[in-house]
Amino acid sequence: MIRVVIWGGTGLAGGELLRLLAGHGGMEVVAVTSRRRAGQPLWTVHPHLRPDYPEMLFISPDEAEAVEADLAFLALPHGSAFPVASRCLDRGLKVVDLSADLRLHDGALRAAWYGAGGAPQELVDRAVYGLPELHRDELAGADLASGVGCNATALNVALFPLARAGLLEEVRAECRVGSSEGGATPSEGGHHPFRSRALRVIEPFRHRHMAEALQELNLDAARLTLTMTAVELVRGIQMAAQIRLAEKVREADLWKLYRRAFDGEFFLHLTPARPSHLRFPDPRLVLGSNRALVGFALHDDGRRLLVVSAIDNLIKGAAGSALQSANLMTGLDERRGLDLRPCYPA
Amino acid sequence: MIRVVIWGGTGLAGGELLRLLAGHGGMEVVAVTSRRRAGQPLWTVHPHLRPDYPEMLFISPDEAEAVEADLAFLALPHGSAFPVASRCLDRGLKVVDLSADLRLHDGALRAAWYGAGGAPQELVDRAVYGLPELHRDELAGADLASGVGCNATALNVALFPLARAGLLEEVRAECRVGSSEGGATPSEGGHHPFRSRALRVIEPFRHRHMAEALQELNLDAARLTLTMTAVELVRGIQMAAQIRLAEKVREADLWKLYRRAFDGEFFLHLTPARPSHLRFPDPRLVLGSNRALVGFALHDDGRRLLVVSAIDNLIKGAAGSALQSANLMTGLDERRGLDLRPCYPA
Amino acid sequence: MIRVVIWGGTGLAGGELLRLLAGHGGMEVVAVTSRRRAGQPLWTVHPHLRPDYPEMLFISPDEAEAVEADLAFLALPHGSAFPVASRCLDRGLKVVDLSADLRLHDGALRAAWYGAGGAPQELVDRAVYGLPELHRDELAGADLASGVGCNATALNVALFPLARAGLLEEVRAECRVGSSEGGATPSEGGHHPFRSRALRVIEPFRHRHMAEALQELNLDAARLTLTMTAVELVRGIQMAAQIRLAEKVREADLWKLYRRAFDGEFFLHLTPARPSHLRFPDPRLVLGSNRALVGFALHDDGRRLLVVSAIDNLIKGAAGSALQSANLMTGLDERRGLDLRPCYPA
Amino acid sequence: MIRVVIWGGTGLAGGELLRLLAGHGGMEVVAVTSRRRAGQPLWTVHPHLRPDYPEMLFISPDEAEAVEADLAFLALPHGSAFPVASRCLDRGLKVVDLSADLRLHDGALRAAWYGAGGAPQELVDRAVYGLPELHRDELAGADLASGVGCNATALNVALFPLARAGLLEEVRAECRVGSSEGGATPSEGGHHPFRSRALRVIEPFRHRHMAEALQELNLDAARLTLTMTAVELVRGIQMAAQIRLAEKVREADLWKLYRRAFDGEFFLHLTPARPSHLRFPDPRLVLGSNRALVGFALHDDGRRLLVVSAIDNLIKGAAGSALQSANLMTGLDERRGLDLRPCYPA
Repeated sequence: MIRVVIWGGTGLAGGELLRLLAGHGGMEVVAVTSRRRAGQPLWTVHPHLRPDYPEMLFISPDEAEAVEADLAFLALPHGSAFPVASRCLDRGLKVVDLSADLRLHDGALRAAWYGAGGAPQELVDRAVYGLPELHRDELAGADLASGVGCNATALNVALFPLARAGLLEEVRAECRVGSSEGGATPSEGGHHPFRSRALRVIEPFRHRHMAEALQELNLDAARLTLTMTAVELVRGIQMAAQIRLAEKVREADLWKLYRRAFDGEFFLHLTPARPSHLRFPDPRLVLGSNRALVGFALHDDGRRLLVVSAIDNLIKGAAGSALQSANLMTGLDERRGLDLRPCYPA
Repeated sequence: MIRVVIWGGTGLAGGELLRLLAGHGGMEVVAVTSRRRAGQPLWTVHPHLRPDYPEMLFISPDEAEAVEADLAFLALPHGSAFPVASRCLDRGLKVVDLSADLRLHDGALRAAWYGAGGAPQELVDRAVYGLPELHRDELAGADLASGVGCNATALNVALFPLARAGLLEEVRAECRVGSSEGGATPSEGGHHPFRSRALRVIEPFRHRHMAEALQELNLDAARLTLTMTAVELVRGIQMAAQIRLAEKVREADLWKLYRRAFDGEFFLHLTPARPSHLRFPDPRLVLGSNRALVGFALHDDGRRLLVVSAIDNLIKGAAGSALQSANLMTGLDERRGLDLRPCYPA
Repeated sequence: MIRVVIWGGTGLAGGELLRLLAGHGGMEVVAVTSRRRAGQPLWTVHPHLRPDYPEMLFISPDEAEAVEADLAFLALPHGSAFPVASRCLDRGLKVVDLSADLRLHDGALRAAWYGAGGAPQELVDRAVYGLPELHRDELAGADLASGVGCNATALNVALFPLARAGLLEEVRAECRVGSSEGGATPSEGGHHPFRSRALRVIEPFRHRHMAEALQELNLDAARLTLTMTAVELVRGIQMAAQIRLAEKVREADLWKLYRRAFDGEFFLHLTPARPSHLRFPDPRLVLGSNRALVGFALHDDGRRLLVVSAIDNLIKGAAGSALQSANLMTGLDERRGLDLRPCYPA
Repeated sequence: MIRVVIWGGTGLAGGELLRLLAGHGGMEVVAVTSRRRAGQPLWTVHPHLRPDYPEMLFISPDEAEAVEADLAFLALPHGSAFPVASRCLDRGLKVVDLSADLRLHDGALRAAWYGAGGAPQELVDRAVYGLPELHRDELAGADLASGVGCNATALNVALFPLARAGLLEEVRAECRVGSSEGGATPSEGGHHPFRSRALRVIEPFRHRHMAEALQELNLDAARLTLTMTAVELVRGIQMAAQIRLAEKVREADLWKLYRRAFDGEFFLHLTPARPSHLRFPDPRLVLGSNRALVGFALHDDGRRLLVVSAIDNLIKGAAGSALQSANLMTGLDERRGLDLRPCYPA
């Protein structure tokens, strides 16, 4: 049994980790921290998990420093995770850090998107970017992995085959996101009377997660814009990329490209070309699972392409990819605890 | 043109008043106060009304004390409205106070539900309860009216015919309410990830608005319980009352009772006995209007009755009834500015 | 490996069975029938399960008669299931019939609620009512089980402790139900522009599922009414029962009663008395799981009680209870394939 | 009083016309047709309008041919409207045809998008395209106007200033649409369990309404794609256009261009540049009104532009523009019956 500590367990990603770990079988949650909730039962924050953690209490970060464990998940705010990561590593724990602190490997890129004063470069160098589909081999031997940005993941799983083939001349992507992306803390924008059924274009051209796509797709910043739009959903991201291809292609060749790229992947799936109403992924079809769906259509001109992906932002976009990475880092079956089927219709 | 000041114009009821008054024609908004937003355009808080109030700025309460006007609507928090009401009356304005400060006429009842230290009895005595359907004649000559509790209104319009007939032996009512009832201020319970699609039983047996129903229906407290349940809606209340009648009745007699009570009422409507899918009111069918719908069904035993009502809580349950009262108080057609048809389906 | 046939696999309950069975491990779906869809891939109807059943096609009922199997789930329309049940039993299969054909054991009750011409009494006599929490021992040795009505289940799990204690003087229950209760076939009432955010009181006092509650709670029909209200949900039922107790009780005694009744039950859970916002069950807290939540509050008068329950209608209210019964009938761990945690917030 | 007949009054556009006309004051509905519902009260189909049309019955199309009237609105299916239009014109009525029959003036374009066998060219030549903001002067003298496609309207109001300035090199637009766009007839795709919270990309690159945008914007087909995506809304369209401009521009110049184009328009409004959360239009901010909102952001490169618009598809995208046209055709104030403020938050 791998003993797991969750740092920062009151947020939505923390809650999802707890849900996944309750059904894992090979990992055991030995402690969950919360500065504000220390001493209170987990279920006061995560009432749906009361039968799974009937007695467990949040502990303070100070107490957690002394807990014997094998692996730590850090679900802490950006900027506050990397010092904890360092200390955990020093104590011999493996670490998966869901924050953005360790995701961007280039110091200049990191500073440009997140400002100065973040994690030291040597710590970042030690971290593997935690998207197993792109870094499986590195994760297998690692003791430190970053998490992934949920929007970045929606982009990366959809576009990596095209990026590797050098086909992306220009990408104008949009992520349509549910309210859980904004986290568990109340805000004016997230207040139900204003957020319900909103179609709110939050950002016209950029979002921090873009940086992870630039890194992982090895893409020039001038080729990519990312529009962020809030829609009526709690969970889920749908990414739709209006693409201009670098050269004219045939649809059959795109199918080959994607099939090859997704071959053997347990969590990445192409949507079928027909019937047409199933051609493009809807986040509802992955709800509650670690799956990512990708679909596309090519314009008659052979240059304009629409690629659409869908993930559950709290799972494949956060806790799920983190657990998948942790499985690899600890030598377990990558799929352990993640063998969940989407809850549909819901 | 009647010159109107709105005290406390940043909330949802204030916004709805502004919407109604923009189309009124006989009243002119000359000032809107906000302590926190003074100096900012109205539309930063009520963006949907930017074409209607393109230049108007919130002013501070201090400035408002000096504004020349004929009538004041108070959309202030409970406890802070009555002193403003007094000062406005002293300056010769008519006042409609949407807060709860002046709704309950019995001092003991008021203290029991809202605590000590509220409005002085002589001020309360001067106020007419602002539900025109029950107090039309008194409002016509009044210079001070209270507002109405939205849940109380859903109860009162549905039950007054039965109450007057002495038929209510026991009422177990439930109000199913949208998120706008909780106001514009963010809260954990109103945060979209937690509030969306919620079916949250907030109170099993009582709610402050019950006191207004006890007063207006002249009902003994032991006969009424009020369950409050939050549902997936922004606007709207559906009240469903499971009633035990004091005596066995025939359905035809209930129809007569209700038809007589609603006769000539512009804003109260009975739903038809059939087709059965239209038998009970749905708040969607009054959205954006000042209408109240009431429907019922009698059990074969002639004693168990289900009465259902629906209102738009921000209109008939707040700003609409307030404007209707103000129309009566200023000698205008009661319907002025309220001739709105429900937006359906929406 | 227990070989399973699903009769009528295109509906929502059929889809949910397929989802549960894909993760079961001890049962294998060998055939799924559809008269209309025979020859088409399962995933054209259940697109979320394409990775789980990539190649499987629907077969016709005629073909299914010849399939070698150990157990059949019948997800067929009422009235058409019992002949299939008979034939399957004759061929030596165990049968779980999700339809209403075999739920009511008293012939008069059955005729009153479903009309004449249904299943022969000897077949009904052979069937165990498929709610394991009430019929665990009988199910263990059975070869035929009925399914459960979803609304009946919401009532039964909530009220059986009170019923057994003889405390139910009068129950006025309401089920607030999501659109999935209406099935997969389009209808005017289920059309999104009309169904979205509806608060539609469908039935004031009765619903067919009431008959199952009368049977299982051993309750006199005059003591129970069931109001049915459609709310904005896809999955989920919240049952709220306004109860008059037969005698005055203390809250502590009710807690004892419920704790004893739920003791050792894996899928039945009480909600905590506090914090108050968690006191009553919300269907969101069981979404995607086989769990039922029950909570209550007692009025100061010791006689008026509010009991609330929540289930996922497609799981505990249909496919989940059916699979739980099947596990018992085949000697497997009752929880097999049902160890799912709610997907929250979603 | 202008006497109005509505042909085809059971659909959503017909219902919205009835709502608008009930508050118009200068037009009187004298007849509403329905082949299937003839003899039934209007309110069985439009229950929210029962107080407005308490007694009126649908009449058959045959009866309607003999009704004395001044103007006809045709809310009939495509292909069946133009013969009625002809006959009404012959009888001296003015006609506004909400169907697509008369929208496209070029015969080849019409045939390409709607097939052969439509309206005769001379009838089409007589019709003015019914978007008053682009054809106000022609409508003033017309006796025949087409309606507008709702998606076309979302495109046209947003892009006409750029099109006239020759700035549109390439437009990749998306309309995110509510379920009311699909009409009142139940369908599998519109069934609530499947449609609720859907993010369904229906068409990757084209939709019939595109043809109207090509015509009205005088745009080459190769420059425009239109993605159609169904979202969780009943009413409303948000159009988001990812544009490549023909030349590098400054943001200040775009503001001038748009301000000039929208100057004096009662129903077209620009959203403010800041605060940033109000920069882009959300359909919620026009719900229930005839308003269109348009906002934009220019990328730092001066070439990539995002333009977003929002309308209520049943009003500005259908019944509202039709009534606005009818007002102009009959010499009334264009705004008559359309002075409605958005219902927000709702």
